[in-house]
Amino acid sequence: MGFAEKSCVDFVTVLASKEPVPGGGGASALVGAVGTALGNMVGSLTVGKKKYADVEADIIRLKKDSDRIQADFIALIQRDAEVFAPLAKAYGLPKETEAEKAEKTRVMEAALKEACSVPVAIMKKCGEAIKVIEEFAAKGSKLALSDAGVGVLFCKAALSGASLNVFINTAAMTDRAYAEDINRQANALLNEYEPLADKIFKGVKDQLK
Amino acid sequence: MGFAEKSCVDFVTVLASKEPVPGGGGASALVGAVGTALGNMVGSLTVGKKKYADVEADIIRLKKDSDRIQADFIALIQRDAEVFAPLAKAYGLPKETEAEKAEKTRVMEAALKEACSVPVAIMKKCGEAIKVIEEFAAKGSKLALSDAGVGVLFCKAALSGASLNVFINTAAMTDRAYAEDINRQANALLNEYEPLADKIFKGVKDQLK
Repeated sequence: MGFAEKSCVDFVTVLASKEPVPGGGGASALVGAVGTALGNMVGSLTVGKKKYADVEADIIRLKKDSDRIQADFIALIQRDAEVFAPLAKAYGLPKETEAEKAEKTRVMEAALKEACSVPVAIMKKCGEAIKVIEEFAAKGSKLALSDAGVGVLFCKAALSGASLNVFINTAAMTDRAYAEDINRQANALLNEYEPLADKIFKGVKDQLK
Repeated sequence: MGFAEKSCVDFVTVLASKEPVPGGGGASALVGAVGTALGNMVGSLTVGKKKYADVEADIIRLKKDSDRIQADFIALIQRDAEVFAPLAKAYGLPKETEAEKAEKTRVMEAALKEACSVPVAIMKKCGEAIKVIEEFAAKGSKLALSDAGVGVLFCKAALSGASLNVFINTAAMTDRAYAEDINRQANALLNEYEPLADKIFKGVKDQLK
């Protein structure tokens, strides 16, 4: 059974344990899914309402995008666990002899690159989700506006949470050129989407007053 | 079956739907539980390690606190759904005659006050969780430090998310003295714990570099 098929209470319980997975990456993917779903809820409460008939086609498109992004996040919860397992194993390799050290470095490096790819994918997905919620907040039912605000908060937190899981892996890489390239990608995503998320949240909060 | 007993994927799916519950409050409680569990994981990876023997008693205490806070958040997911149901019903009451209008106002006001109490409780719980994670980040295993960082991000997002669910309810209240008192409580919690969460996160991020 995949982690996303666990009950919420069981997911939280295993997350709190010393089990190596799920970890911060998988938790970020779940929070991203929850945030995306809150945007999608705005859409669900807008579709079919006469008052919003002129944006109906946009809302249906955004809901389809949200369904896809949610499914991608759910898959990333499991994917993060799958790529962490070889890394956890690599950390345990012996490093007594020079040959063992070299082998451990080689295996670790490959495992780190693989383990890094998932939080990067989660970050990109959070960016997509934030753009979708921006449009939901602008066009969707004002009765559900606070849900768009909460949704964007959660996608921003998931973006930032996934970035820590990128940085902790790149910090351990010996291939510094590769590591710096990934760091640049992660920082570019933070620089693009954190201020956008803040702007969307502020817009929602101002309208609620 | 309570919402926390649903699988993560089912929770996200019903959240995205037009079903009145779960909503932003319940989603905030779930994200608070996930954040708390990430702090708790730092504790789980610290307990029993020789290197951290001198903080073992603190870590065990913090883990007990985290277990309790997680359980409280899980209960609040369900509680938020329970208090929203009467409010959703109250919104649907007729207001054709003056008598109906008065009755609707009376029922709405009681339902709003009840509905508001849960996101306020979620906010207080996020504050508790943030303080616990602060201590995990300071005393726990450095190998799991990023998890404390992600945990505090999620508890901060849950705090802020719950606050929107407070403000949307207080805005609809006719008893303005009561509403302003709740708003003051919510703002005090934001003013106390958002900067603390930011400080903890910055401390973690600086150490990961």
